[in-house]
Amino acid sequence: MIFPAKQIEGLHIIANLNSSSTELLKRCEYYKTFIDQLIHELRLNKIGEVYHNFENGGFTAVVCLSESHLSIHTWPERNYVTFDVFLSNFLKDNSEITHRLYTETVAFFSASVIYEKLLTR
Amino acid sequence: MIFPAKQIEGLHIIANLNSSSTELLKRCEYYKTFIDQLIHELRLNKIGEVYHNFENGGFTAVVCLSESHLSIHTWPERNYVTFDVFLSNFLKDNSEITHRLYTETVAFFSASVIYEKLLTR
Repeated sequence: MIFPAKQIEGLHIIANLNSSSTELLKRCEYYKTFIDQLIHELRLNKIGEVYHNFENGGFTAVVCLSESHLSIHTWPERNYVTFDVFLSNFLKDNSEITHRLYTETVAFFSASVIYEKLLTR
Repeated sequence: MIFPAKQIEGLHIIANLNSSSTELLKRCEYYKTFIDQLIHELRLNKIGEVYHNFENGGFTAVVCLSESHLSIHTWPERNYVTFDVFLSNFLKDNSEITHRLYTETVAFFSASVIYEKLLTR
């Protein structure tokens, strides 16, 4: 079965955030609980993940979905978060789900958006 | 120690590629060997990874570095690859290294670039 390239294209959202939720930025466990719940709710299929707490605070997390991935890096000492999420539209249009993963992450950290790019790629 | 926001900014390269190297697109093991060698050569610090081969061919790989991450998804039946790499400049300017990870990945797959965005974020 050959899919046209259009069907593979997806929405990639890239953002830098400011957040004063220092405790949530320091260690990955809170985010893991939150995002696992959201992934379950959105009926996405997790195929792997990396969670890494840095010694001085802050963490990196990447969650791989069969539809693609999301990544987050935090710098609690700067109230700073970099986030990106990309879901291909291989089997269906996932743009709305991509938006949800983004906006709910922003809300989770009570963050304000410093930088934002939405790419259809 | 407080770092100015500028020092956290980094280069994020996002690309869609076309490649006829079907065997390299089908399973992740070749790419893993290649990128591990390159990460070693560039003296980057790997803190985690996900490699997942899909049943019908194609794979997803994400490598987390202490400086950030790179991700790749392949669709061998479409000669198609989506790739992104993002390294923050937290401790030093990693832009050249980010370019190397990208251009060497393109070369590894003998790929042509269909879509490319370079974001300083």
